[in-house]
Amino acid sequence: MGMIGGGTDAFIGSVHRLAAFMDGQVELVCGALSINPDIAKSSAQLLYLPEDRTYLNYEEMITMESQLPADQRMDFVTIVTPNFAHFAPAKMALEHGFHVVIEKPMTFTLDEAKELKQIVDKTGLLLCLTHTYSGYPMVKQAKAMIRDGVLGQIRKIYVEYPQGWLSKLSEREGNAQAAWRTDPKKSGKAGSMGDIGTHAAHLAEYVSGVKIAKLCADLNVVVPGRMLDDDGAVLLKFDNGASGVLMATQIAAGEENNLRIRVYGEKGGIDWKHEDPNTLLVKWLDQPVQVLRAGANYGNLSSYALANSRTPGGHPEGFLEAFANIYRNFTRTLQCRLEGTEPAPEWLDFPRVEEGIRGMAFIENVVNSGNSDTKWIDYVV
Amino acid sequence: MGMIGGGTDAFIGSVHRLAAFMDGQVELVCGALSINPDIAKSSAQLLYLPEDRTYLNYEEMITMESQLPADQRMDFVTIVTPNFAHFAPAKMALEHGFHVVIEKPMTFTLDEAKELKQIVDKTGLLLCLTHTYSGYPMVKQAKAMIRDGVLGQIRKIYVEYPQGWLSKLSEREGNAQAAWRTDPKKSGKAGSMGDIGTHAAHLAEYVSGVKIAKLCADLNVVVPGRMLDDDGAVLLKFDNGASGVLMATQIAAGEENNLRIRVYGEKGGIDWKHEDPNTLLVKWLDQPVQVLRAGANYGNLSSYALANSRTPGGHPEGFLEAFANIYRNFTRTLQCRLEGTEPAPEWLDFPRVEEGIRGMAFIENVVNSGNSDTKWIDYVV
Amino acid sequence: MGMIGGGTDAFIGSVHRLAAFMDGQVELVCGALSINPDIAKSSAQLLYLPEDRTYLNYEEMITMESQLPADQRMDFVTIVTPNFAHFAPAKMALEHGFHVVIEKPMTFTLDEAKELKQIVDKTGLLLCLTHTYSGYPMVKQAKAMIRDGVLGQIRKIYVEYPQGWLSKLSEREGNAQAAWRTDPKKSGKAGSMGDIGTHAAHLAEYVSGVKIAKLCADLNVVVPGRMLDDDGAVLLKFDNGASGVLMATQIAAGEENNLRIRVYGEKGGIDWKHEDPNTLLVKWLDQPVQVLRAGANYGNLSSYALANSRTPGGHPEGFLEAFANIYRNFTRTLQCRLEGTEPAPEWLDFPRVEEGIRGMAFIENVVNSGNSDTKWIDYVV
Amino acid sequence: MGMIGGGTDAFIGSVHRLAAFMDGQVELVCGALSINPDIAKSSAQLLYLPEDRTYLNYEEMITMESQLPADQRMDFVTIVTPNFAHFAPAKMALEHGFHVVIEKPMTFTLDEAKELKQIVDKTGLLLCLTHTYSGYPMVKQAKAMIRDGVLGQIRKIYVEYPQGWLSKLSEREGNAQAAWRTDPKKSGKAGSMGDIGTHAAHLAEYVSGVKIAKLCADLNVVVPGRMLDDDGAVLLKFDNGASGVLMATQIAAGEENNLRIRVYGEKGGIDWKHEDPNTLLVKWLDQPVQVLRAGANYGNLSSYALANSRTPGGHPEGFLEAFANIYRNFTRTLQCRLEGTEPAPEWLDFPRVEEGIRGMAFIENVVNSGNSDTKWIDYVV
Repeated sequence: MGMIGGGTDAFIGSVHRLAAFMDGQVELVCGALSINPDIAKSSAQLLYLPEDRTYLNYEEMITMESQLPADQRMDFVTIVTPNFAHFAPAKMALEHGFHVVIEKPMTFTLDEAKELKQIVDKTGLLLCLTHTYSGYPMVKQAKAMIRDGVLGQIRKIYVEYPQGWLSKLSEREGNAQAAWRTDPKKSGKAGSMGDIGTHAAHLAEYVSGVKIAKLCADLNVVVPGRMLDDDGAVLLKFDNGASGVLMATQIAAGEENNLRIRVYGEKGGIDWKHEDPNTLLVKWLDQPVQVLRAGANYGNLSSYALANSRTPGGHPEGFLEAFANIYRNFTRTLQCRLEGTEPAPEWLDFPRVEEGIRGMAFIENVVNSGNSDTKWIDYVV
Repeated sequence: MGMIGGGTDAFIGSVHRLAAFMDGQVELVCGALSINPDIAKSSAQLLYLPEDRTYLNYEEMITMESQLPADQRMDFVTIVTPNFAHFAPAKMALEHGFHVVIEKPMTFTLDEAKELKQIVDKTGLLLCLTHTYSGYPMVKQAKAMIRDGVLGQIRKIYVEYPQGWLSKLSEREGNAQAAWRTDPKKSGKAGSMGDIGTHAAHLAEYVSGVKIAKLCADLNVVVPGRMLDDDGAVLLKFDNGASGVLMATQIAAGEENNLRIRVYGEKGGIDWKHEDPNTLLVKWLDQPVQVLRAGANYGNLSSYALANSRTPGGHPEGFLEAFANIYRNFTRTLQCRLEGTEPAPEWLDFPRVEEGIRGMAFIENVVNSGNSDTKWIDYVV
Repeated sequence: MGMIGGGTDAFIGSVHRLAAFMDGQVELVCGALSINPDIAKSSAQLLYLPEDRTYLNYEEMITMESQLPADQRMDFVTIVTPNFAHFAPAKMALEHGFHVVIEKPMTFTLDEAKELKQIVDKTGLLLCLTHTYSGYPMVKQAKAMIRDGVLGQIRKIYVEYPQGWLSKLSEREGNAQAAWRTDPKKSGKAGSMGDIGTHAAHLAEYVSGVKIAKLCADLNVVVPGRMLDDDGAVLLKFDNGASGVLMATQIAAGEENNLRIRVYGEKGGIDWKHEDPNTLLVKWLDQPVQVLRAGANYGNLSSYALANSRTPGGHPEGFLEAFANIYRNFTRTLQCRLEGTEPAPEWLDFPRVEEGIRGMAFIENVVNSGNSDTKWIDYVV
Repeated sequence: MGMIGGGTDAFIGSVHRLAAFMDGQVELVCGALSINPDIAKSSAQLLYLPEDRTYLNYEEMITMESQLPADQRMDFVTIVTPNFAHFAPAKMALEHGFHVVIEKPMTFTLDEAKELKQIVDKTGLLLCLTHTYSGYPMVKQAKAMIRDGVLGQIRKIYVEYPQGWLSKLSEREGNAQAAWRTDPKKSGKAGSMGDIGTHAAHLAEYVSGVKIAKLCADLNVVVPGRMLDDDGAVLLKFDNGASGVLMATQIAAGEENNLRIRVYGEKGGIDWKHEDPNTLLVKWLDQPVQVLRAGANYGNLSSYALANSRTPGGHPEGFLEAFANIYRNFTRTLQCRLEGTEPAPEWLDFPRVEEGIRGMAFIENVVNSGNSDTKWIDYVV
């Protein structure tokens, strides 16, 4: 693995490394870790990178690595730069034959996302998008149950993602994370809807198996002086006729990171909270609620849930393990491809360029709706 | 207390009686308990009503009671009939000098509600509307904290009320409760929005102290064959600039009666769930969450919270006690009026005709918005 | 109902009245509400008692009431005095033909308890002991499931009752409740073990259906200056071979009233907490945990659970309703007896003189064990 | 890192590897992964070990590694064999100059533990004992608060560890984990008390800072045919006068792995559950409960809590991260030693040979007490 971005001054880069290393199958071999040369070098040292594979920008890294013998060069590149700096390195990496792991939202604009898909299609390489929350075993359990029809026809979807860390104008108080995420030049058209709304939208479609068809958005800039939405709520219509509500806010003072999804069908519903990620509540129309737990040996957990946990029931796995599941499934699929074998269906289950396009389309549509006086707008991709 | 409706074939009538009797201050002295004479009589017998005060319709009851000497007649009348049969007996009772307790929604139409207010204003009598959930001590605690500015300016309100009991077409399967509540001739313009959406809207305004100014509603008839909305979600704008989301559904299979409200201000938020009504979570921007508990002797619970519980912390009070609080505050206020004394401010805190108008306006506005292609409509009263 | 004790300066008396009145079947007709004549009179006035049935001591009350015509005298007497003043009025009431409701622990000594049983047996009258927690519907559900063998052979019982309100020497700081409960002359041989340990012991035997056969107790006086145990833990052996642990403490600073019981059998376990009394967790060896809820219409709740709730699932009932269930079952049984009919089995389910003897025996045995160097002592009744 | 035990047929070995690898600071360089040569070889292959450092027994590994140049040999050895096979390799490794990480319980007997301490003292090498649960940030927070006197004098400690996985005689049904853990020849004198009771005892002493001074144990063999205790409860007296209860069972059908500790002092208490490990409830005598969360930026979390989490509040870390904390603190301390620098106090916080002796003493004392008719026995080390 080579890494673009993720120096010591970043947040998500270290999470990617923890996740990638956890299962002992991935090694960091090179990096262009910062656009600041000093940080790029010092970060590389801390990560035991050799000097000759410590690069100062992504162009250099991709060029140089592609000139190494096939068995010595990096197998894939991970891109953890701010949103505006996703597309160019991803494109160049793919065009030089490298598989790509990329942070969400996938690109800066929907057009870039579509172009990336064309390159992926043309090159036949893998692109893995780290929608972390879809890596949790009990999220996969929910998806499997719904796919298997256990809840009947899906009728209602509530997905919410309240955070409170942008309750003040932190971008003016030296918070680097806040600074780029609220800057339309770095983050894109949307603020909270891009940062966390895309996670919520992905989760809703991933778990339920239905797609957003129409939406009606209320986007707000709550904190005076902020340049992008920091709060919003969206009414949803899905392509199967179900309706839903998506709430994403970063000004819910006192909230941490409480992504939650509830999906109701004719026969029952599921309820998953990031706060307690190893539990899936299954609610039934005419039976007691059941508490499904990750790693439990009931004999009826989905193979997708089981394949994405490492320990027996009662040994909580968390955010890093969910993240590692994305990496593990991606790298197993990659390894199968390198070995010419067929990956297990569970390993193929990681977000890709198509999900990246959905995410960018979500941003476009939700911003358009937020600016519109018409109630429902079609979800255009 | 005299009662109109609430025979043995009804649901909410017995709840009213349990609530009214609990504190030992109210006695049922007469009733017109059903339009079915047999049920009216047998129900009266079970409740130990004397035969001469067992009436067969409300006109008879109000007429006869008003002819009794002042110290023998009922002090007030409780109306627990279906929505369409609220207005006429309420009007007649007030016009004959009786105070009124009435189930929500207050009337069948907004116009009726406004007329009722005129009568209340003219007669000077008390009208108490049983928005039960505002009777919980920790709801009152939340209201008090917000009123006192503890959370700062209010920014975001989420209120949700998921139920699952109408997931099937139960109104065709002999469920009497379902039958009238889904019948536009008995229930009114709205189904779930009238039945439970009004509770949610009242709670949002009661707790936050701000009023809905605009809304954008998505109303759905999910179960085929149903005549009124059984599901909906509403985007809200409040008169102080805050935004919000209201969700009310009766087709969330597996849900019981999980009303929940979250209100966020600049400095923190509150989170109250009917499922655990004696707890109020208070979330802070920069301090740990606090768990406030009904009846606790911290020395910093609001007098409104303390006045509305009967037992020390750790002795859970529930739905019936919340209901009884509405009755207790109403009857204490009534008693003060009868005695010519000044009620404590905590006793004056029960929902009245003004809240009844807000509820009927909510129904009107939410139905109008549901039928409209325009995104935001002004909340007209 | 007549009441002995329970004046305005007492705690549990008002709880008894709330519970008794709730279902509209019981009326307070007379009382000897305090040994302080002023309080006795003023308390009676507040409760609308007529002057001629406001008594200044229990002897007077029982004597006078027994001289009234049968259809005018009280049907039963409720005794809510401190422990040392239970036996004499209970004895006198029974000997004058009155049924009795009595607070736990039933008497001051085990000998008194045994004598009371002789009188009950001789007179054939009803004695109802208010072990409140056995009135909760989900406690009854747990009992029913275990009785029906759903969990298989019972193996392990944990019952705990942590409170924190005696963490300081409150009995010296004007806390009247603390004063008598920590005074061996008023409370009896045990402090916390008598006050709350007896509840825990009763609950363990009630739910599990097995009886304590041996025990090993650690009793502590934690707060310096206190005269009775304020903390303790007891290892238990039951008559079926199961083992258990009972923990009762009043010095767990910050705890409210968190009685909890867990019972495990070969096939699964149940877990009930007073904090969330409408929920019963059922844990299975090889299936997901189930969340049973009071009032739910699954079709598989026990008739004992259903008969002891008043509202549908999702309408929390609490401590007062559990208390009221004891009264309701007792008074229905009493009414059947007066009418010469057969009570439903669910109505017969209230604690009686036998449970009172078990409670007093628990106190005796636990104090003996606390003072002994021998590990296990036989539970002697 | 070299590893002894932990082949593909084992459980805890892979957990050690996940934990060791997570932070990208540890590499597996050699292993004697199984006493079965085939498993030893195939496991090594899966872990990318070179053939020349794939050993078939620990003697060979330690001998060979010690003959490598200092900068090529393993830095430390991790021992993850069953209990009976801990001492010999640990002793040999230390005597050959290798630092040691070892699973709990540290040895097979208390005598072995004491001998190991002598060797550690003599060689000056590090021995790290993986009492995982002490690696959780909120456990460290609890310890820090108690050490800082926030709760006042400690009065009561409840620690419980219910599991259900040995509810049947699984050791006769092909469950390899059950087989050795219930075999006195492989596991030692105690079953559940050694396997999980030692974790509970360690946690109690670690968090509270006080030491067990006396105990009174009830050990049970619940499942017929089992050779060691599968259930037990222990009354405790601590050296500061506090009392406590320790419950450890493996026959609580339906329980997963729910270690929980509650510690109460004069001013309040803490409550930590493994089920929700990122939360620490802090209960106060006269203030609302506070909910402390791992990774939160309140400004008042202990440096020990903060140093042991990797992500911001709301990103749950779990069992593997807690395990990784033990490794991370150990390896940082080791690295400092190698570099001649001073480790931060937070890094020195990992369990060592002294805790290993306490654990073995716990087993000895608890078994002795279980066999004794005397109530209290002194805790002898």
